[in-house]
Amino acid sequence: MVPITQHAHPLLAITQGDPAGIGPEIIAKAFRDAPDQMQGAFVVGELATLRRAAACVRRSGVPDLPVAVITSPAQARDMPPRCVPVLPLAGLPGPLPFGAVAAEGGRAAAECVVWAAQAALRGEIAGLVTAPLNKESLHAAGVDYPGHTELLQAQAAAHAGVALAQMPVRMMLASDELCTVLVSIHLALRDAIDAVTPHNVLQTLRITHAALCKSLGRAPRIGVSALNPHAGEAGLFGREEIEVIAPAIAAARREGLDATGPWA
Amino acid sequence: MVPITQHAHPLLAITQGDPAGIGPEIIAKAFRDAPDQMQGAFVVGELATLRRAAACVRRSGVPDLPVAVITSPAQARDMPPRCVPVLPLAGLPGPLPFGAVAAEGGRAAAECVVWAAQAALRGEIAGLVTAPLNKESLHAAGVDYPGHTELLQAQAAAHAGVALAQMPVRMMLASDELCTVLVSIHLALRDAIDAVTPHNVLQTLRITHAALCKSLGRAPRIGVSALNPHAGEAGLFGREEIEVIAPAIAAARREGLDATGPWA
Repeated sequence: MVPITQHAHPLLAITQGDPAGIGPEIIAKAFRDAPDQMQGAFVVGELATLRRAAACVRRSGVPDLPVAVITSPAQARDMPPRCVPVLPLAGLPGPLPFGAVAAEGGRAAAECVVWAAQAALRGEIAGLVTAPLNKESLHAAGVDYPGHTELLQAQAAAHAGVALAQMPVRMMLASDELCTVLVSIHLALRDAIDAVTPHNVLQTLRITHAALCKSLGRAPRIGVSALNPHAGEAGLFGREEIEVIAPAIAAARREGLDATGPWA
Repeated sequence: MVPITQHAHPLLAITQGDPAGIGPEIIAKAFRDAPDQMQGAFVVGELATLRRAAACVRRSGVPDLPVAVITSPAQARDMPPRCVPVLPLAGLPGPLPFGAVAAEGGRAAAECVVWAAQAALRGEIAGLVTAPLNKESLHAAGVDYPGHTELLQAQAAAHAGVALAQMPVRMMLASDELCTVLVSIHLALRDAIDAVTPHNVLQTLRITHAALCKSLGRAPRIGVSALNPHAGEAGLFGREEIEVIAPAIAAARREGLDATGPWA
């Protein structure tokens, strides 16, 4: 059996996102415009919502996008190009009014992410791709996570049987040239400054190093950004670089990490 | 007489920047690589510093860049291409060690900016272009301005005979596609958040509107950025958008400005 991540077309679950938002249409456009890259990808969501999205991205002279129900991830591989495979979750609401914050939209978005995270943790899919959710709708649905990152962390911790504090995570924005890892997310800017502590910066460096060693197959070079304009200009405009960030970098270097900075 | 700003090659003073920094070399490279665009431009600075910079950017097979002294801005128009015209200021230090913070470097950088600002205010030049200075060196020189913007503001206020508070200014980063105007600069990030007040945001909008009406010949469309991640997500991650920025935008709109936001 070919390991799922080494298959020519790894199985990727795309969460539909908030049904009132732009997620379903973006997904439909991807199947419309990049059928080759979408092989092995399927949508976790709700059929009528994806059908509406396919209709929204209809173009004159181009055949309509078919939307087909699948019942297991592997069936995504049997789809003809430009067909949108949907693995429907029971109990999700149908199409919602566009652009309106609604608890049921938040709940639907969250359930798709939870399903995809658990499928990935069980090894049934190679990864997940998330369409946008609305944090206000999540909040209205009583889903006590500010975003994707925290939702995924909770699933991973539950799967491992550990407390959240035992499984610290960070968000990484990645391209072929550069990966950017954030010390904090989903905080008011004032609170984000308070979150720049030696512990949090060092933990970010350790997580970044470990994750990139795994994906690159070598130790990454890590440049640490400053917090203040001009990196504080030697303390003239803020002292976090001197008192917090530089000591965290020094500690990481003592552990053998190739971390430098703080860079303006 | 042709007004200076309408001449085919308006006279532009380039301040040499901190002599210990990269400014002089960047200037020399511009004369080396883009001689056509440099017509009418000259350097305010110190001869030996510019000669060292010209030597630093020497390339095998390419003739050395000549550096010539001029005694008035208009002589810059008589220079052959790729010749670097320097208008020397009396009393500036010669070449300083690269990369070292030094009070005399800060003083030299500031004196060039002051000279160029005053020449522009007198109408002798069409504008100025500034090479980087080092704010730590400025500080060491006892120059009590954190950067170019405040130095230029002080010269403009003195020229107009008004107090600094009577001449509020903002920094604008401009390209053909987009101009970005900052509410605050040269502050620690914590202090920059405190500077997001209704008064400061509204003043920024008024200054932006007035300046762009002049340079564009029409009223600009102004999009106002949020402060917090996700524009605070309706108050979940910070309330400055609701309590400060939106009211300032509303006030600007009542004055007839085309301002919208806050945008995430």
